[in-house]
Amino acid sequence: MPKFMDIHRGMEGLTADQLKAAHQADLAIEAQEGVHFEHAWADPDSGDVFCLSEAPSAGAVQRVHERAGHKADEIHPVPLSV
Amino acid sequence: MPKFMDIHRGMEGLTADQLKAAHQADLAIEAQEGVHFEHAWADPDSGDVFCLSEAPSAGAVQRVHERAGHKADEIHPVPLSV
Repeated sequence: MPKFMDIHRGMEGLTADQLKAAHQADLAIEAQEGVHFEHAWADPDSGDVFCLSEAPSAGAVQRVHERAGHKADEIHPVPLSV
Repeated sequence: MPKFMDIHRGMEGLTADQLKAAHQADLAIEAQEGVHFEHAWADPDSGDVFCLSEAPSAGAVQRVHERAGHKADEIHPVPLSV
């Protein structure tokens, strides 16, 4: 299954609990689109959040994020990894 | 040890072998700065490469990348992760 790295911008001041809740919201509905969000990393100072997922398409990633209330600003397929 | 996500832009057309070689170049010298590059993901279409590392500082991350010949365009501390 393809992997994607998506970026959310503008989440300055995000707390650990908020990140956990957002990730839980994704996990709760991800199966609807055949997506699995593996990890998320956040920089509360710049407000950038990075999410790594396996998904059938970038659209599927965005649909889950959108339904969970936090659209991604960028979604990159990452076919290469080490 | 703090974690960082750094982004390299402009690597359109990057191949699997090139990503592997770049990562190996980092691994070969990372100990000089007390850095460990855990993973890298690449999107050859957009040319964006994402590197996750543990490091004492963003400066240490950039010094290793610079010596290895591929400066990062953005380096984000990611104190929060799930």
